[in-house]
This record gives sequence, structure tokens and C-alpha cells, in this order.
Amino acid sequence: MFKKILIANRGEIALRVIRTCKEMGIKTVAVYSTADADSLHVRFADEAVCIGPPPSNLSYLKMSNIIAAAEITNADAIHPGYGFLSENAKFSKICEEHGIKFIGASAEMIEKMGDKATAKATMEAAGVPCVPGSKGILASYEDAKKTAKKIGYPVMMKATAGGGGKGMRAIWKEEELQKAWESARQEAAAAFGNDGMYMEKLIEEPRHIEIQVVGDSFGKACHLSERDCSVQRRHQKLTEETPSPFMTDDLRNAMGDAAVKAAEYIKYEGAGTVEFLVDKHRNFYFMEMNTRIQVEHPITEQVIDYDLIREQILVAAGVPISGKNYFPQLHSIECRINAEDPYNDFRPSPGKITVLHAPGGHGVRLDTHVYAGYTIPPNYDSMIAKLITTAQTREEAINKMKRALDEFVIEGIKTTIPFHRQLMDEPDYVAGNYTTKFMETFKMKEI
Amino acid sequence: MFKKILIANRGEIALRVIRTCKEMGIKTVAVYSTADADSLHVRFADEAVCIGPPPSNLSYLKMSNIIAAAEITNADAIHPGYGFLSENAKFSKICEEHGIKFIGASAEMIEKMGDKATAKATMEAAGVPCVPGSKGILASYEDAKKTAKKIGYPVMMKATAGGGGKGMRAIWKEEELQKAWESARQEAAAAFGNDGMYMEKLIEEPRHIEIQVVGDSFGKACHLSERDCSVQRRHQKLTEETPSPFMTDDLRNAMGDAAVKAAEYIKYEGAGTVEFLVDKHRNFYFMEMNTRIQVEHPITEQVIDYDLIREQILVAAGVPISGKNYFPQLHSIECRINAEDPYNDFRPSPGKITVLHAPGGHGVRLDTHVYAGYTIPPNYDSMIAKLITTAQTREEAINKMKRALDEFVIEGIKTTIPFHRQLMDEPDYVAGNYTTKFMETFKMKEI
Repeated sequence: MFKKILIANRGEIALRVIRTCKEMGIKTVAVYSTADADSLHVRFADEAVCIGPPPSNLSYLKMSNIIAAAEITNADAIHPGYGFLSENAKFSKICEEHGIKFIGASAEMIEKMGDKATAKATMEAAGVPCVPGSKGILASYEDAKKTAKKIGYPVMMKATAGGGGKGMRAIWKEEELQKAWESARQEAAAAFGNDGMYMEKLIEEPRHIEIQVVGDSFGKACHLSERDCSVQRRHQKLTEETPSPFMTDDLRNAMGDAAVKAAEYIKYEGAGTVEFLVDKHRNFYFMEMNTRIQVEHPITEQVIDYDLIREQILVAAGVPISGKNYFPQLHSIECRINAEDPYNDFRPSPGKITVLHAPGGHGVRLDTHVYAGYTIPPNYDSMIAKLITTAQTREEAINKMKRALDEFVIEGIKTTIPFHRQLMDEPDYVAGNYTTKFMETFKMKEI
Repeated sequence: MFKKILIANRGEIALRVIRTCKEMGIKTVAVYSTADADSLHVRFADEAVCIGPPPSNLSYLKMSNIIAAAEITNADAIHPGYGFLSENAKFSKICEEHGIKFIGASAEMIEKMGDKATAKATMEAAGVPCVPGSKGILASYEDAKKTAKKIGYPVMMKATAGGGGKGMRAIWKEEELQKAWESARQEAAAAFGNDGMYMEKLIEEPRHIEIQVVGDSFGKACHLSERDCSVQRRHQKLTEETPSPFMTDDLRNAMGDAAVKAAEYIKYEGAGTVEFLVDKHRNFYFMEMNTRIQVEHPITEQVIDYDLIREQILVAAGVPISGKNYFPQLHSIECRINAEDPYNDFRPSPGKITVLHAPGGHGVRLDTHVYAGYTIPPNYDSMIAKLITTAQTREEAINKMKRALDEFVIEGIKTTIPFHRQLMDEPDYVAGNYTTKFMETFKMKEI
């Protein structure tokens, strides 16, 4: 087993990793930027090394400084957390070259899953369903027609140079195709000087549902069921839950099997997440694989009594997994508490926390690195806490979240607590009736 | 279901009950003494009524004030928590007479279980093992000899007027009896002017292990397995765990069956605890029954994913239980954090909390009513928080407790955090090798 792990991260995830290391009797090294000198991860680690000033490219992304910190402190492994260098193939490789175990994916694996086209081709080869589409740019209107027929309506036509919805068309039947083809190409040509178009299956009422997997160094993988992360704002997840209210046993088994197949096909080692889009007919399509721990991992831990960070460390140390899959025994919800003003378009609200009272009691978990008197630096991600409630049923977990949010007092800055509190009363959310489009129509009620 | 519940208590248990009520959509009324105006239970309840000044007999024990508060606020039930009026037969009766549901035992039940002799006789009639002993005062030396033979050596002889160990003798074999009989009587006569002696089986290496039961209003009961509360100081529990490291499946089934038999025999309604002494041979003997929620109930909740307060409320509202028993799926430990100085004979240390940082993360639960800036009044129990850790194994739960205690910062007052931290490293505790005598030899290490 590792003797000392350096955590190449900050905030709640650095603290999260330190906690499990302590519980496993492994020494820890924190690294920190000058903006984070007062952070709890610095206080709770056995050793701490300053690796430079903000912004991140001078510290948390500065590989040479982090490797130097590991060498100075004699750390035999590095846990990268999420974000920063967690999916950086070069960093994974440098760690390996320095004889330091990178607790994450190999450089080869990160490269394979980091490039969308390669990831999709790999998954198709593994037999995992991917969003059907044209092979590159459509050659002609006839090609478009043939492709649409093959993948089946509805389809999306997208400009290869596109962005911001320009040159993009949803097409529901063949009669609409010609007009769309012409207008989209004109629009794309005008906007980007490039009228190249490609086509994909349109995912109706899409849900973002991901499967947690763990693979060991013996080629064996298992899944730990799903997390529904459909409540997103500009591709940022706001709240997650497991089980998904949209899930059925059949769908879970099918998605779980696909994720395990994917992980075993690529001989995936460590904790990873296979993200899928699921349409209203419960077809599911591979989106991407995250080769690291996810922000929302605690809800999985809560419903299966499992410590995912511990599992990452064990697997990295060469311990085999049992291979059995895990199914949710309870219901768990996570609300990401951000230092943002939900009444003001979620504008970041850094500053000093003057008062902090944490919720507690039965079924409440709080993962946070902040405290009363802590000043949130403006340099980093605005997430300051993850509030997780767990209960026998979804209804109880929602009710527990409401009372926990009501108890949670943070003064001195704005937070997204009021947003989550309103969300928990929103009829569509309460009914489990939401897709990735949910936040496009959600409006905060003024109070 | 109840519309509004008044909580006739203070501190963490008042908050605990309020939390579950909120989650169930039941309105709450807090009562408080003038010393508790700044308490969280007052802040988090829907309504709050001041019921007088400290000491408790002018407020938390003042039945007329509490009943008046319930009537003014139109509460249809009262939850008494633990301590105070929770096992007061008169109060239970008064509630009933006022048409307010007492969420606890009936007056008759409290009286039956509150008197030791009646409780023991009832349990014997129910077929629950009790500590064998003489029927009252021993008539003569011959009677003592006969009784000792019948109950089996070793035995304890005790002065009927006794206390503080005076006139008390442990007797391991018949040859020792005569000398003990004479010297104990002389000692008792000198100390109390009364040389009456009685005899009980000596419980070798006793453990305090209790079984949680829940009974419904249809005469059905179930058990929720055990809690080991052997680590006590002057009969005050300091830390509890479940499962007991001393437990076997056979013993759990036997004790569980006995507890369910006891509860069903007396038609017990609500949550209750049957306390047993268990000797080194794994014989178990009824000690007493607590007809209320216990301080240490969270560890049971953690290992079976169950909300005991919710269950109390449901049963009081006439909902039947399923009748199945519950067995621990995990390991959970509770440390009672008291405002006491463990380096100074656990002397109470009331005062103002200047800094508070709560531990958190995976497997950590904190039940507390205090916060930074809160002043602990000198009038009440010194317990200020219950820290509970839960994990797959006992070893992991202990390691989790260590890191949670290390994270827990309370400044301004002395607390028992250092005591628990040392306890978690004590070889006999770590080995699960402890009895109710454990604290007699435990010494704090100066640091």
C-alpha cells in the first residue's frame, strides 16, 4: 500500500481524498497556491507545499512544481481529484516516468477517451450504443437523405464549423429535409464561411444519465449503477440523484452491462464514469467517458455504502475488485452549493464567509472546505459545498434536502442555496419529470 | 397523522425531533427556558414558547406550563425526547387527559417499567432472564448458603441499606461465605445501622448491551438489534457502538427474541430499549427497560437505514409495524461530546463557544444544537454533540472516528474530544475488549 499520497488539487475534493487517506493510515501531502494558504486541505494534510500563485497554470496546472513537491516530500502516489490535471495524459505519463503512481487512468487511456472521435470509435468497436450519425461531412442532399433514412427520423443537421445553434436544424420527417438542408447551409456559409454539414440522430427529451464503473489492474470491471445529472445549466451540473427517477431495472441492467463492457474492452483501471444520453424511449447512447472521480460521486457512495476514493486507492495499489455490480439500496440527492447569486443569473459571488452553520443529523452529508472566516478566492471554481441527503425513498430524500437547505446558513456571500430550495418545490422536479433542457425554462421566484 | 407536535425538551434531541417532523411535513412547537432563548431548537421550530426560567423544575419539568404551551399552540401531540418528562407517568397521563397524544409510553407502562422490582417481576413472568438472587433479605447464614448454592457461585452479597460498596462482598466459593457473611454484616451495621443483607448472582466481566425494540398499538413488536454501551463513567455512557464486538449471531437472536417477548408481553407501544447485562460466558440478564428514545439511538439508525423518531411518530399515530426484525448491515460508533475537561476529572466546562468547525464527509453524522457564538448554559446536561461514524467494518468506523475527531474544532470551552481521540487508540478498546469496568482503570495521557 502507498505510504504517502500527494493530492494535486484544492477545495472539497482535496479534503475528501485526505479524509480517506487518513482513514486508511496513509500520509498526505497537500499542494496549494498562495490564494489557498488558509484552505482546510492545507490544514488537514500531514504536509503542505506551496506550488505557486494563481492562476492555475502557475500552480495547480504546473506539472513541474507538483512533481517537485512529490519528490521533496517523498510521496509515492498522486491523486489528481477532478478537473486540473486529472485527465491530462502528459501528467499521467510524467508521474509514471518519475516512479510516482498516478491514481487515475494511464496516459494511453486518457488519450483514447479524451478525444471524442477516438472514444466513439472505440465504444462502437466494444459494442456500446453511440449516437448514430453521418460519417463526417454530408456529400450532397442525396447523401443527407440516405443518411437520415438510415439513422431514422428525427435527426439533427449541424454545421461542422458551427456553434451557438447557427446552421443547426432539427428535422422530424423527410418532407422537411430539403428546405432545412438549403437554409442551414446558407446560414452556415454566412456565419462561418463554411457550409459543411453533418448529421446525427436527434435525442428526444434527453436525459444525462451516467454509470459509475470501477476497473482493476486484472482487466475486471464492475458498475455501481447510475446517477441522473440532467439538471444542468450551460452544461454545468447543478444537482444529481441516484437512482434516476427515469430508470427501470431493465434499463439499468442494459446500461450497466454496456458500461462494464466498455471498461473491460479498454482494460480500464480505476474509477471512471461512462456518460450516456437517454431519450424518451429509453434508448441510450454513449456520450463520453470521464477517466477520474466525479464531483457527484458521493450519492453513489451513500446508496451502496461504498467509499469510492478508497476503491481508487486500492485498485491503484493493485488490489483486485470482487467484480460484482452494486445496486442502489436507498435514494440520494446532491445539491452543489456554489458561491453564486441565483437571483442574478448565477453571477459568481466570491468574498468572505462571515457566518456558517452546517446542517446535520440523520441522512445528511456535507462535503465542504469552507468555514466561517474563510475568504473564497475569485480564482477558482465557485463550488463551495456539496450537500447530500439520503433516505429510503426519493420523496423522503427531497424532504430531507429541504430541511437541510433550510438549516444551512452562509452569510457574507451569495450562494445557490435558495435556488436548490426552490428546485425542491418545483413540480416537474418533484415528479422526476426533467431533461437536460429543464433549466432553460426554470425561473427563480423572487421572495 | 399529527398536524403539530410540541417538543418538550431542549438541546440536540429537540432539534433531532424537529428535523424529522419537518421531513414528515408536521409543524413543530419548541418550548424553552429563558436560558435557552438562543438555542437552535427555538430557531428551527415553527413556533416557540418560553416556559419559564432555569432550573428545570421551573420550566422543562413544569407540566402545567408545557400543557398550556401545547394548548395555546394547538399542538396535537407531545414528543418528550429523553430525560426530563420522558418517563414521567403523571405527565403521560396528563397529556392523555388533555387529549394530547404523548409520543411515548402510557402511564401504566411507565409505572410498570419504572419500578425496578415490578419491572423484574414482570420480565420474569414474561420469561426474560433476570439476575438470579435472594427473595429479599437473607434470613440467616444457612439461608445465605442455600441461596448461593441455588443461584450458583460467584455471588454478590449486598447490604439492603447499602451504597458506596460498603457491606458488599464478592464470594467465589462456599468456603469464603461464612467470613464474608460476618464481616459484611458488621460493616453494614456500623455504616448504616442496618445489617440486612441480600444476594445476587455476580455478573463476571459485565457488558451493558441493550436491544432496541419498537412496538405498535396492535400488540406487535420487533427488535432492531443491539447497542454496546459498556464504556461508562459513573453510569454515564460515553461512547456506544453497534454491533457489539462481543456479539455472536446466536446471542443476538436470543437477546432479540427475549426483548421482543418482553415488549409483546407488556403490549409495549413505541420505541423502547431493553437493557441487559451480559457476562463473560454470554449469559444475559434483564437490567431495566427505558420507555423512551435513547441518546445513542443514531447508531442503530445508521446501520439499518431507519429513522427511529419517524417510527415513534408513526406508531403513536396508529400505524402498524411490519414486525420484521432488523440486523446491522454496517458498523457504527457514537462519541458523546460533552462540555467537560477530560484532563480534570471531567469537570463541567460551560461557557461561550468561540470557534466551531464540524467534521463532515463520507460516513460522518453530527447531531448538535450548538454553533459558534453559542453560550452553553451551566444549568443542564453537559452533552453538546453526538459524533457518529459508520463504515463497513469496526476498524474502518474507528479510523473514521479518529479523523472526524481530529477535524472537530471547538474553541472557548473544554470538551471530551481529546478523551474520545485517546480512547480510539486504546488497545483494549480497539480490540473490543472492554466491560462496564473499563473506565475504572482508563487514564488520560497528558499531551
